[in-house]
Formats: sequence, C-alpha cells, structure tokens
Amino acid sequence: MMRTKAAVALEAGKPLEIMEVNLEGPKAGEVLIEIKATGICHTDEFTRSGADPEGLFPSILGHEGAGIVMEVGEGVTTLKPGDHVIPLYTPECRECHSCLSGKTNLCTAIRGTQGQGLMPDGTTRFSMLDGTPIYHYMGCSTFANHTVMPEIALAKVRDDAPFDKICYIGCGVTTGIGSVINTAGVEIGSTAAVFGLGGIGLNVIQGLRMAGADVIIGVDLNDDKAEMAKKFGMTHFVNPSKIDGSVTDAIVELTKTEQDAFGGVDYSFDATGNVQVMRDALECSHRGWGVSVIIGVAPAGAEISTRPFQLVTGRVWKGTAFGGAKGRTDVPKFVDWYMDGKIEIDSMITHKLSLEDINEGFELMHAGKSIRAVVEF
Amino acid sequence: MMRTKAAVALEAGKPLEIMEVNLEGPKAGEVLIEIKATGICHTDEFTRSGADPEGLFPSILGHEGAGIVMEVGEGVTTLKPGDHVIPLYTPECRECHSCLSGKTNLCTAIRGTQGQGLMPDGTTRFSMLDGTPIYHYMGCSTFANHTVMPEIALAKVRDDAPFDKICYIGCGVTTGIGSVINTAGVEIGSTAAVFGLGGIGLNVIQGLRMAGADVIIGVDLNDDKAEMAKKFGMTHFVNPSKIDGSVTDAIVELTKTEQDAFGGVDYSFDATGNVQVMRDALECSHRGWGVSVIIGVAPAGAEISTRPFQLVTGRVWKGTAFGGAKGRTDVPKFVDWYMDGKIEIDSMITHKLSLEDINEGFELMHAGKSIRAVVEF
Ligand SMILES: [Zn+2]
Ligand SMILES: [Zn+2]
Ligand SMILES: [Zn+2]
Ligand SMILES: [Zn+2]
Repeated sequence: MMRTKAAVALEAGKPLEIMEVNLEGPKAGEVLIEIKATGICHTDEFTRSGADPEGLFPSILGHEGAGIVMEVGEGVTTLKPGDHVIPLYTPECRECHSCLSGKTNLCTAIRGTQGQGLMPDGTTRFSMLDGTPIYHYMGCSTFANHTVMPEIALAKVRDDAPFDKICYIGCGVTTGIGSVINTAGVEIGSTAAVFGLGGIGLNVIQGLRMAGADVIIGVDLNDDKAEMAKKFGMTHFVNPSKIDGSVTDAIVELTKTEQDAFGGVDYSFDATGNVQVMRDALECSHRGWGVSVIIGVAPAGAEISTRPFQLVTGRVWKGTAFGGAKGRTDVPKFVDWYMDGKIEIDSMITHKLSLEDINEGFELMHAGKSIRAVVEF
Repeated sequence: MMRTKAAVALEAGKPLEIMEVNLEGPKAGEVLIEIKATGICHTDEFTRSGADPEGLFPSILGHEGAGIVMEVGEGVTTLKPGDHVIPLYTPECRECHSCLSGKTNLCTAIRGTQGQGLMPDGTTRFSMLDGTPIYHYMGCSTFANHTVMPEIALAKVRDDAPFDKICYIGCGVTTGIGSVINTAGVEIGSTAAVFGLGGIGLNVIQGLRMAGADVIIGVDLNDDKAEMAKKFGMTHFVNPSKIDGSVTDAIVELTKTEQDAFGGVDYSFDATGNVQVMRDALECSHRGWGVSVIIGVAPAGAEISTRPFQLVTGRVWKGTAFGGAKGRTDVPKFVDWYMDGKIEIDSMITHKLSLEDINEGFELMHAGKSIRAVVEF
C-alpha cells in the first residue's frame, strides 16, 4: 500500500479535488505505473459532468496517459520496471473470443469489471485515506500520479518518446487516425468529409492525409477552426451556418466531377456526437459505396435515424471505438510514426498544466480554447 | 410498330387490364424481346397498389422475366436474335462512373430516364391503341408478351435453361442469394439470422447454406413458414409472437457458446421491409463485427433508427439492391448454378398462370398462398 496524489471526482458535476489517496500494489497480472502525463478528454468531462448515465463516484478519471512501469504483479511477463507504457482503455488480451476473431479490437476479457469501475478481481486499488474505495475509470485512472492496471491494458512503447506528447496517442490521436485507416479503410485518392474540427476531427484529417485522400472537406460551425484544420490537411471548408441549403447538398455539389454527376464523398466521419450530424454525414456519402463512420459519443438515449433507402442504395453506416486499434499491437506503431514525423501531435497540445490546475483544463475545453490540455506530473 | 398483349396498370389500386398495346421496334442500342415467363414480385404490387410514391400510370409492370431476343437495334453488338436473356432492372453498362468504380452494382447510365418510366431517349415504346404512351416499369415491363429494353439491361443466358424457372433469377433469387455472397460476404462457419421467410427470405437462407453458414436462424410470425425454410437450410426458427421477451434477446441466447458469452449473429438480414424489424436485425448482430443487411423495401417515409452505440461497438448497417449483383456478369452465373443444382428454384414456383389470370397472382400473394406465381406466355 502506497500513497499517491490524484484528482478525484467526488460527485457528478463538481470540480475534481486534488488529494492524497491510498493505492494498493499490483495483484497477479497487474502492473503499477507512474503516470508522467495525461490528456484531458471530452469523455472525462462527459462523466465528470454527470451526463454519463453509467458514471460512478467517487472515481479517479483520466484515460489518456503515458508513464513508466514501477512494479509488476505475479505472472506478469511482458512488462518490467522501467518500461514506458501507454494505458489502454480498450485492452488486448489476445485470448478472448473477440481478440481471436480477428474482426474487432473490442477485447472482452475484462469488460464486465472495467465497466463497474473495478479491477478484474472485482475490487479497487484506490481508496480514500479513510478507507472508502475509489472507482477506477475506463480501466485507467490516469488523473493520478500512480495507478494500477492489468498487463493486458498496457502498450509498451519506445523509451525516447516524450510522455507529454504520446499520452495523446492513448485516446484522441489513435481514435481519429485509426477510424480512417482501420475502420473506414480509406484508399489513396479518396474523397472524405469530416464533421467537427476539434481534437478528434483534426486527427481524422491527418489520418486522411496519411491515407492519401485527394479531397478532405472539413465541416464546423466555427470558422476559426478552419486554419488549424488546413495545416493538418483539410482541402475544403464548409460552415453549415453560412451556406444556403443543406450541408449534405453543399458536399454533394463540391464533389461532383465531369465523370461523376452524382457527387458525395467516399468516406465521412462524425466527430461531433450530434445525432443529426451523424445523419448528415451518412447522407452526404456517395451512393453505391459511401462509408460513414460514427466516432462521436452521443448523449444518453439519443438515436440516429435515416431512410433505409440510404443504405439500400449502397451507403454503409459504421462506428468506431478507439479507432479500431488493437492497443498493444497498434499503439507502439503510432508512437513510432509520431517519432518518425508521420504523425503530428505537438501543435495540438495547446496547454500544459500541473495536476493542481486540472480543473482549468476542463474550463479551457468548455471555452473552446484548447485542442488538448495535458497534465504533467 | 407491332402489337402485343400486355397486362396494363391503368391506375393505382386497380386490377391490371389485359389488352392489346402498340410496341415500337428497338431504337439504337435497344433490343426487342419476346417474354416467355415472368414472376410477380412484391415490388410490382407496391406500385400497382399505389403505395409507391413514384409510381407512374398507365404502365406495364413486371421486372422478373426471361425471354428470347427477336430483333436488335442499331449498334447492338452483344446480342442477336434467338439469344436467351433475362431483363435487368439494374443494368450494367460497364462504362459509367459507378460501373467503373468496381464498388457497386448500381449502374447509373440510364438511371434518370428509367426512374421516369422512359427508355434512354426519353420516350416510351409502348402505347395504347389510341396512341396514349404507356410507361415502362423498372426499365423492364415484363407483364407483356413483348418488350423493348436497352442492350445494357439484358443478361445473356444459356439456351437450355427453362424460362419459367430462371425468370425468378431476374429478381428474387439474385436479391436473396446475392445479399449473402455479394453484400454481406458471409464466410463458411458463420452464424446468421433471416427476418421474414417469404420468397426473398428463403433465397437468403439458401444463399447462407451455399456460403457454408453453420447456424441459420429464421424469424417469422407465421409458424407455417418454418417447414419450407428448413428445406432451404434453416437450422433454427423463432416466432417472435410465441416467445417471452424480445426477438433480439432470443437470438443472442441462441448463439451464445462456451467460447462466446456475448452471443449475436455474425450476419443478419431483413427481408420484411418493416423498419422496426430492420432495427431488431441490426441489434441481434454480434458486438464487434455483426453485419446487418437491409433487403426489404420500407413504406414511403418510414425511417430506421437505433442508438449510435450499436454501431460504435462494431456493428455495421448496410443495404442491398438486386443483391449487389452485376447483372450481365452475375446473372448468367446464377443460371448456371441453377442448372448445376447448386441453386434450388423449382419448389418456390408454387403457381403458374396465364397472362389473362395475372390478377389472381396478386391475390395469391396477398393471401400468403404463393411463394412465387409465374405467368407463362
Ligand atoms: Zn478520450
Ligand atoms: Zn481479448
Ligand atoms: Zn422484384
Ligand atoms: Zn454503368
């Protein structure tokens, strides 16, 4: 049992509280990590705010981190103290029915307990100094200087990569780029539309550039988002509030060519979480083969809808979680790509904070001032 | 200009009227066909009844035929008099942007005029004896002893195949089997559910058997449908009106195994046209990789919906038209498969009628007495 410093979500809708907490050492198959940096993601805010119907309190949020292995529990064979790791909210056990299917990244080995805020043995490692258990969050809880995680939920990465940048690969970068290369399978020369030019949207855009898309249309209600998106590869910008007619019509018109009188994008991505936007994204995709990918998390209870004709005429509606990436396999590769300059991260880390100031990170997010705020320990 | 006998839909909701009509000879790129047999499909009834908001009158319905080339227009190179052909409501020009994409069967070469009930030059070949033009239907109009069609909308098939059976390949057989092998891409050993055990559903089931599916669950409100479906390969039957709980739960339970605690089918198919059933079909497919295919035609204005979570957790929603088949390429192959005994058709042709009795065919359909009624000339 050790003590560590953490930002604790005591109840829904309240600011996080910085405090000392107890942390038990790793049990069998578990690993103690020193977190060196963590991003603050919209999903953390979704839970903190109380919007997440499955949110548990008190808990230690945070799921986008990077750190160093301090100690390994019994039976851990793939990691040792000193290894650099990125926590994975989508583990990769390589043994469950899902992993063995080869068809999905949604490992189900520890899904039940993770959803209940518990380690695989059904207990928590964190507790208040008075002994009250503190829930884990998405199996990660990176808003703490130290955390304990299952071996199968840690990607071992190279030692020379900076923690304050690669932590973003733990969620936003992989979700955005992975949705392009894993889920959609975009080919060179494709046309695409990206709805929502926040952090995820920018990463979708750079994923499209990596995949060799010819036309990359960004859609956002805020003109200010266009400049940054252009730097990441956006070729056209549409602000739905500043056009006559619908955004789907605008995108269809933009993509008509001499060869193609129909128009529509080969691939579209929703990075807004708005169900009406998800519909627009589907309906602006090309008759016959358009693939539309839902990335954003919708409010509880919200539903998507469309006329079945949209699908019968060849459009495909899919979604993605963690960009379809198999964490232990793909995340080290993403880190290599960052170090090789194939993936741009630095300019998206717009703010650095200490743990004490983590609530400022949420305020920056609400004010639309940050792409990603990162807490360094 | 010749005369031929046809069943004409004079106005929405009325029985067809058998009459002599005028038929102009084939113009450039067109072919005159003697229709030898034609199936009566639900889509014909959708239009006849007035439910189809795009229905045009007067028109000659029918789109599931087989016949013999009588005469070819200028520039026709791939067909000659005496060739046996199956009309294609989805043409295959092999030259348009859609055909060249290699990603879709939805050829767009003559889409505009076909939707308006016209030949590609914007006129009709059929007219009443008083000269009133009669619209073409789905580019086919097989409820006539003779019809004129574009060369690109005719599949040349072998001469020894019986017209009264292979006409069914012009719509139902190809739609059902094609949705399995082209649209879903079902692999050997898969699990699947088929909603609706009418003619399309039976063909989906035999497609699944051809593809080597291990588990083929049929779903229908009518127990009487089960016997025939078993003959085509159904392994389990669910009648939603006779179970406690939802049909999705029942299918999930049926497909749980020792290895797979989650359950759900790898592939599901809606062959009902009911949007709530389309949702059930999606939601009973497997987390992580389930693919659900919409085949049925929904009522005008009806919408499908679901929580985006269903897609974000790995399900894929698609649709199919003409089973994703490229008509001139795939239909001759389907005819070969029928002749080789790979595809069963004979037992599905439950009724034979003369053109004079075609309205009986619609009555049999409504009474649920026929799988397929075929008119022979
Ligand atoms: Zn996140
Ligand atoms: Zn697994
Ligand atoms: Zn049909
Ligand atoms: Zn074409």
